[in-house]
Order: sequence, then C-alpha cells, then structure tokens
Amino acid sequence: MAAVIEWVPNISEGRRLDVVEKIVAPLKSLDGLKLLDYSSDPDHNRTVITAVGSREVLIEGALALYGGAVEHIDMNEQSGEHPRLGAVDVCPYVPVRDVSMKDCVKLSKEIGAQVAEKYDLPVYLYREAAAAEHRQSQSVIRNELGEYEGLAANMGGERWSPDFGPGKPHPTAGATIIGARPFLIAFNVNLDTTNVKVGKRIAKAIRGSSGGYLNIQGAGFYLEEWEEGPVTIRSYDEHGAPKLNHGTYRRPAGKVQISMNFLDYRKTPLYRVLETIRREAARYGVGILETELVGLAPAEAFIFAARWYMQTDNLNLDKQIIDFQI
Amino acid sequence: MAAVIEWVPNISEGRRLDVVEKIVAPLKSLDGLKLLDYSSDPDHNRTVITAVGSREVLIEGALALYGGAVEHIDMNEQSGEHPRLGAVDVCPYVPVRDVSMKDCVKLSKEIGAQVAEKYDLPVYLYREAAAAEHRQSQSVIRNELGEYEGLAANMGGERWSPDFGPGKPHPTAGATIIGARPFLIAFNVNLDTTNVKVGKRIAKAIRGSSGGYLNIQGAGFYLEEWEEGPVTIRSYDEHGAPKLNHGTYRRPAGKVQISMNFLDYRKTPLYRVLETIRREAARYGVGILETELVGLAPAEAFIFAARWYMQTDNLNLDKQIIDFQI
Repeated sequence: MAAVIEWVPNISEGRRLDVVEKIVAPLKSLDGLKLLDYSSDPDHNRTVITAVGSREVLIEGALALYGGAVEHIDMNEQSGEHPRLGAVDVCPYVPVRDVSMKDCVKLSKEIGAQVAEKYDLPVYLYREAAAAEHRQSQSVIRNELGEYEGLAANMGGERWSPDFGPGKPHPTAGATIIGARPFLIAFNVNLDTTNVKVGKRIAKAIRGSSGGYLNIQGAGFYLEEWEEGPVTIRSYDEHGAPKLNHGTYRRPAGKVQISMNFLDYRKTPLYRVLETIRREAARYGVGILETELVGLAPAEAFIFAARWYMQTDNLNLDKQIIDFQI
Repeated sequence: MAAVIEWVPNISEGRRLDVVEKIVAPLKSLDGLKLLDYSSDPDHNRTVITAVGSREVLIEGALALYGGAVEHIDMNEQSGEHPRLGAVDVCPYVPVRDVSMKDCVKLSKEIGAQVAEKYDLPVYLYREAAAAEHRQSQSVIRNELGEYEGLAANMGGERWSPDFGPGKPHPTAGATIIGARPFLIAFNVNLDTTNVKVGKRIAKAIRGSSGGYLNIQGAGFYLEEWEEGPVTIRSYDEHGAPKLNHGTYRRPAGKVQISMNFLDYRKTPLYRVLETIRREAARYGVGILETELVGLAPAEAFIFAARWYMQTDNLNLDKQIIDFQI
C-alpha cells in the first residue's frame, strides 16, 4: 500500500458556497486523492476540507487548491469570527499509514516552497515543521502577526520573516501556514452513572493540562436523557379497599461522558487512557457502558489496541496485515 | 479502497523451479496484483502461490496462471506426495476487505466458467461455492475422483459431472477445483508454564473437534528451551575452610504453546477464543506470556478485537477507518 497522508486545509471562505465549490472542484477529479469531506461555516467564514492521498497527488492538490483560493478570495473583503492569515489559512499534512512524521514534514516544506514560488505567497511552517518554537502554534502565529490585516506591519525580522516566499503579504491572499501534525482522534467514553462529578473527576485525572496524560484533552459531561413509562400505584380508599391509580413515571436515564481528543495516539494510545479511566471509574463503583469514535481514525490506532490487549507483541503491521500489502 | 481479495492457487509443480518461474512470471507484472509469496515443495511436487488484488485483476491473473500451467505441466508425467486433480489443483478466493463471501463465490464461478471455456478444462466448485454438500471439501473431491489418474473413470453422473467445462479430463492438465473460503488465521498463545498437560487440556477445551469452538483447530505443545548460566557453589574443605566451586547450571525454561487455526475469524473471533484460553489457564494458576500471529491476517480481524476490548460498539470499519477510504 502506498503511503496514506491526511490533508486538512482550511480556506477563508464559508459564505459564498459557489466560490467554495469552484475552489474544491479540481480536488474532486484528482486521481488518487479522496476528498472525504468539506464543510463551510458562515459565521467563521471558513471551510475545512479533509482529504487523503499519497505524496504525489497531494502536491498536485495543494497547487490546485492554492491556485483557486488565490484567484477567488480577496482578503481585503473577507471577515469572519475565525482568526486567519490569508486565503488558505492553514494547511496541515498528517501521517496515516506507511509514512512517518518526518516524511510529512518534508512534504509540507516541499509544498511550502512550491506554493510560495508559484503564487508569490509568504509561507510560515508550523507544528512539527516549525523552524523555531514560537512558530509551532498556528494561533501564536496568527496573533503575533495580527492576522491578515497586521501582516504588512508585523512580517519580517528574524522572528517573523516567512520560511518561504516574499517578505511582504500577497496583495489579496495574505500569507499561509503549512506544516505537519499527528492525527487527532476524538474518542468518548460513556460511564454507567448519572453522577457528572465522577466524569469530571476522571477527566481531570487523565487530561494533560491537570497532570494526566500528555497529548490528552478531556472533559466530563452529563448526557441528559429521561425515561418515561406507565406506572400503576395501588392506594386504599376510606373503606380500606384497594384502588389502582394509573399514571406516568419520569426518571433520569442519562449517562456521563468523558469526551477526549487524542493529540498524538502513537505516543499516548487509546487503550492506555481507556484502561486508566476504567480503573478510576471502578474506584467509584462505576463501569464503562461503551466508547465512541467520533469521525475517523487510522487503522493502526485500533490495531495497536488489539496488539496490546491480545499480547501479540511481535505483530508487524507493515508485514503481517494483508490489507496493507497492496 | 477497492475490494481486496486473497488468492491462493496451488499448482502441481514443485521440482522444476524454472517451470514454476515461467508460470508465475506473468503474475509479477500485473498492475494491481501483489504477489505476496510462492513456495515450492519438491516432495509434494507442488507450489503454493499467495497473492492479493481486486476482482478485475484476479480474473486476468487466473487466466494467465491457468494458461501457463496448462502449457507447462503434463499430469501424465507428474507425481508427488500431495494428492491432486490437475495442473492447477486448487484455486480459492478469500475475502479480505470491503468484499463479501458472496462476492468471492460469484467471482470464483465467473473464473471457473472462463477457465473452462478458454482451456477446455473441467472445473469443480468447492467450499462456499460448492453446488452440493459432497463437493465442499477438496480432499473428498480428490478422493472420490481418484486424483488425476482416476478422472476419466470417475467423472460424470449427477455426483461427479463438473460444474463447468467438458465431461472428460483435459489430456494433460486434468481438472481443477475452484471456490471461495474464509481467510485462515494461524494464531498461537504461549503460556507461562512448562507443564504441557495444561496446554493440551486447554487446546482440547477450545477446539471444535472435541466440543469447543466451531472453526477452531488447536493443539498444545511444549516449546523446549533451556536456560544455562554460571553458578558458584560454596563448600567446605576438611579443615572447615570455605571453598568456591564454579560451574554451570542448566534448567528447563520452555513454555507451552497452544497453536491454532481460525478457519472463520468473522464467526469465531480471535478475542473470544483468547479470553476463553485466559480463563481456562487461570484455573490452573497459569498466565498468558504472549500471543503470535503466524503469517498474515486481515486488518479487520484485529480491529474487531480492539472494538470488543475497547467497547467501541458502533465503530463502522467502512466509514470510520481512514486507511479504508482510498
């Protein structure tokens, strides 16, 4: 199987859907690129595109996408809730299968160089491709540069000269952020309790920000649900004769959910966090009802879990999984 | 991802390796077919070929393979330990990914019809493609027809007229068996004991033939292994003074293995049998050291396990595994 890379470019147009269609159209006919989703948010005035493909087709796809965005989006007339630097705001490459993070970093740099050259567009490399620590986060880059409107004033110097392209913003497309990052897995655990405190405590125990696992974001919620049904209550009249009263009962039947983002499942895997949650919940006498994968995940995230639970320690995914042979 | 089907044809040549190369050669250049392995056994005088591909390329591959085998193998001069019906003895199609058993049955029938037509070769359908119960097993077919040598005498009648092709054997290539079957997974469980009785008892408990799980073949073995190392023994001489004797110790350090074939992992999954073994072993105070996948397995066999252990009940492999999207 050829390398599989996920590509999640965000463009600064979420209102003029005809324009979005024009920009996305060339991606639909690229042989070997699978457009999984694109969804536009008019408030954010932004469209998130999700596609997968191999190295070569992603270079072609990027050139087509940047071409369309530069042609159709004028940042001087663009506004929305979501902060942004340019027509293509951010463009990450994500390793999925048979490809390393290093390969994705290399690819993002190649694409950055080509996009800068072809469209005379300043490119900032971020996340794993960042040249310096202060350039790792897309929000820091946007903030310090003052978004599209601040580019002309804030670009340049050692701190903010672009990694590729000219030292001044493109007159209509601004600048762009390109890089590589791990796959983000959204995974929920539903607990057999209606006591939200248990969920909140466990979420606090496992998320990185409060001392838990690195690469884990998590929060506990109560998922409201009510159960209703017929009920018969026996009472007695003044003479002591039994009387049946028919009515309806209503009782809480919700469950508590721990909702998580796994920011780097290769380092902090699903099964380890899940089994920590199981142990923490058991301490409150609570069990796990079920878990949910939200959206997509790489096959290996689940195969890693099977390998761990089944103790198949020497399982070689590249050589022993038949699906990955073609 | 296009459908992935495994193809495991067995040809009746395992000695003239130049002939094997000639027959296999066209499979190497077929775009979209991945030849995973071919190994020849001179005693059996037989070569087992393993390849994966999608429907279309497998039809092309079959026609090429049968063409080569019919051209190069003369069954009148062939002998070996392994029973066989013809130049291509048996030709199974195995669903791996995004394809049903029904699809593979259909494919095997299409290929059977084409092969019969093109090479004037009688074709018997077996396993899931069999037209009658007595035709399900390749060994029953070979036995009742009396192998290649018995074909002319035993073919025909309602019981043994071929599913496709002429009512008499091909003068040099004999007949062939084509069909569809589930993927066979070879999976071993190593127990933390040197007591082979525990392994044999558990194997008996879980294999279908002795009352255990259907679709499971299993046996318990002792994997001999010895640990050696330096040892120092303190003794005392006749005057009561301590004396150090240096030597080497040797002690059994093997483990017991339960070796299994999963004949239909969709119906009798890895995790269920493994957890039964874990429970049975615990009853003897024995734990599981590790497990081993021998050879290849479909990704879904492991993803099914992860889904079960992690309770991700609604996981939809076709829609939520990103690798399977292209």
